[in-house]
Amino acid sequence: MKNLLVAQSGGPTAAINATLVGILKEALAEVRIDKVYGAKNGIDGIINDRLIDLDSMMKDEEAMDVLTLTPASALGTCRHRMKDWNKDEQIYKKILETFQKYHIKYFIYIGGNDSMDTVEKLSSYCKLKNHDLCIIGAPKTIDNDLCMTDHSPGYGSAAKYIATTIAELEKDISAYSIPAVTIVEIMGRNAGWLTAAAALPKINGESGADLIYLCEREFDVDRFVRDVKQKLSEKPGVLVAVSEGIKEKNGKYVSDRVSSGEVDSFGHKYIAGAARTLEQIIRREIGCKVRSVELNLMQRASAHIASGTDIAEAAMLGKKALSCALEGETGRMAAIKRMSNEPYRTEYLSVPVSEVANHEKRVPLDFISPDGHDITRELLEYMRPLIQGEVNVIYENGLPKHVKLY
Amino acid sequence: MKNLLVAQSGGPTAAINATLVGILKEALAEVRIDKVYGAKNGIDGIINDRLIDLDSMMKDEEAMDVLTLTPASALGTCRHRMKDWNKDEQIYKKILETFQKYHIKYFIYIGGNDSMDTVEKLSSYCKLKNHDLCIIGAPKTIDNDLCMTDHSPGYGSAAKYIATTIAELEKDISAYSIPAVTIVEIMGRNAGWLTAAAALPKINGESGADLIYLCEREFDVDRFVRDVKQKLSEKPGVLVAVSEGIKEKNGKYVSDRVSSGEVDSFGHKYIAGAARTLEQIIRREIGCKVRSVELNLMQRASAHIASGTDIAEAAMLGKKALSCALEGETGRMAAIKRMSNEPYRTEYLSVPVSEVANHEKRVPLDFISPDGHDITRELLEYMRPLIQGEVNVIYENGLPKHVKLY
Repeated sequence: MKNLLVAQSGGPTAAINATLVGILKEALAEVRIDKVYGAKNGIDGIINDRLIDLDSMMKDEEAMDVLTLTPASALGTCRHRMKDWNKDEQIYKKILETFQKYHIKYFIYIGGNDSMDTVEKLSSYCKLKNHDLCIIGAPKTIDNDLCMTDHSPGYGSAAKYIATTIAELEKDISAYSIPAVTIVEIMGRNAGWLTAAAALPKINGESGADLIYLCEREFDVDRFVRDVKQKLSEKPGVLVAVSEGIKEKNGKYVSDRVSSGEVDSFGHKYIAGAARTLEQIIRREIGCKVRSVELNLMQRASAHIASGTDIAEAAMLGKKALSCALEGETGRMAAIKRMSNEPYRTEYLSVPVSEVANHEKRVPLDFISPDGHDITRELLEYMRPLIQGEVNVIYENGLPKHVKLY
Repeated sequence: MKNLLVAQSGGPTAAINATLVGILKEALAEVRIDKVYGAKNGIDGIINDRLIDLDSMMKDEEAMDVLTLTPASALGTCRHRMKDWNKDEQIYKKILETFQKYHIKYFIYIGGNDSMDTVEKLSSYCKLKNHDLCIIGAPKTIDNDLCMTDHSPGYGSAAKYIATTIAELEKDISAYSIPAVTIVEIMGRNAGWLTAAAALPKINGESGADLIYLCEREFDVDRFVRDVKQKLSEKPGVLVAVSEGIKEKNGKYVSDRVSSGEVDSFGHKYIAGAARTLEQIIRREIGCKVRSVELNLMQRASAHIASGTDIAEAAMLGKKALSCALEGETGRMAAIKRMSNEPYRTEYLSVPVSEVANHEKRVPLDFISPDGHDITRELLEYMRPLIQGEVNVIYENGLPKHVKLY
């Protein structure tokens, strides 16, 4: 018997189940695969022998369509960074036990950086021990920080959510005639790809966020206050977008300004994000109405406004990952190569996972405008195709239909 | 000449422009109206003679469709509570000057409680001074706190956004196997109608928020901690929804716990919402992973997921308001009467604005479950029809198209 095992790992996205469905649909049509299993909560489910049979699920076409647009990892997720095998071989042995028990020949792990590290370690270990397993990674991250792929599934949908929300917030803010600053905090500790999406309404001639600060560039609080004052002199409602990970010259997160020594009324350290910290600064320095908005979990969970392109590519990458495994590849990740922007054309390929794991793709500094508070036309053109197309959400009683796998 | 003037006021919603379009479409077909004007920024625009001609705009059908789903008040808004005429008659005289200058015979004011107070005061003043004007209110509020109408436009769309987001967050949270509490703060200082929408995923057999606290009921922090502990014993990911306006026994907002005496590193008072305060409490009392999420402006601006029912009703109320004005009514508000839940049937009528202004419709206590952390089936059935139906958003380059009126 040659069985397939699929698992998901890392932060959920709106497109991660589309990759799962891409794998399952391909597996259903594939005679070289006998059974398909899913591991609950990523690698943890393999270690603890918590596998579920996906065979019956796969045959239910409507359920597969609903699963495609169900946000977050339907198989459950984990944050587990594996130790090297020579430090904790027990874990590796447990995983191989589960593989043997279920006759797993192919393992596809959908995830981000840490998950690709797992693929790398596990495939290396198997080679070393002469276990004939094909272990392939399928990329997933809203942060778009994976190397060796033009972009990663989950990013396009999060970018579409962010751009849509910024366009909507801009209308809300513009309705008032009194000066007010709204600071939107967008996910990204080290990479500002998502924050850059706050500029996307520009492709439709709208303003998008008036000031955009990516975490790749050093954040200067004084310059920020000056930028805001300048914008306020041009229009009453100013919309600012910042990466959660913006850092000052001293290398510290802006959010550390508040969280550093502060305690709340219970004596606990106060944890504020970048936007809340900047809100305080604007209130003190300018004194106008100011509000901070965190897009929080919504930016990775809003499958109802997923990008059609992103969802289709996520499924294609799942399919590609499985075909790589079936061809005997191991220790590789399915990836996207962009052939052209207009028309948007891509190719699917596989890349060595060792060149993905523990690397990080940040926004190149020359994608940030010289004034430091906007992005370049080039970056807009990079993002534009990734948010194209809408998805056919299935509604039930006025709400998007979702599915649970267990 | 008999001209029509329209203005918008109060907090923006996703449906307020649908009401404007309802009025404009009706006005276009109406021979009794010569010209149509819009006032910029509500009553302030009338006081300051900032009117725009809407005649050409009205004839552009595509622009009208785009305007219907453009979030926030396209004419701009204000927060202006008028003084009584015997305290500041100058303002009233200025308004009448503008009315006379533009030959305004009909004035429709789209807004919430304060706006209905303006309709009441202005129509009373006109009657007193024998000015033959027809002044009618059209309701709008995401809070759903207006009396004399079964519900208000804007509420259904915000409820649909909240219910969709709660359903999506529930998937995100359920993906993890470690204990974690997520506390979602929903708008509503005095009325918990929006927070109740966190239960709506139940109509599809989903769990919705596990614990729901409306501001109508006294909030007991100790009981809250016990409720969360109980839920954590049943499942790892617990989702809590709270109104921003929850108050403790002493009558103080829960959020006052943090904001009361605290100062940030700049010596400024720290303003935290209810959810952030509860986040601190759970961290201290339970010690598990905890996160707070504010739905913030998104819950009133997310026109891309507006309720089809809400948008249609918003337009119908605009139409009704205009027909009331044309029939010579004044000092009244267009309203909805629900005839039946299943099938959902409504009638449009007008009600005396004096019974709307300065009143507040809160969630009846018997719509809250006896345990205090859920809502009743009756309230679910009240909300259910209001989120039905999806809107045909017009997308351009992957983003919802919007229109600006000036």
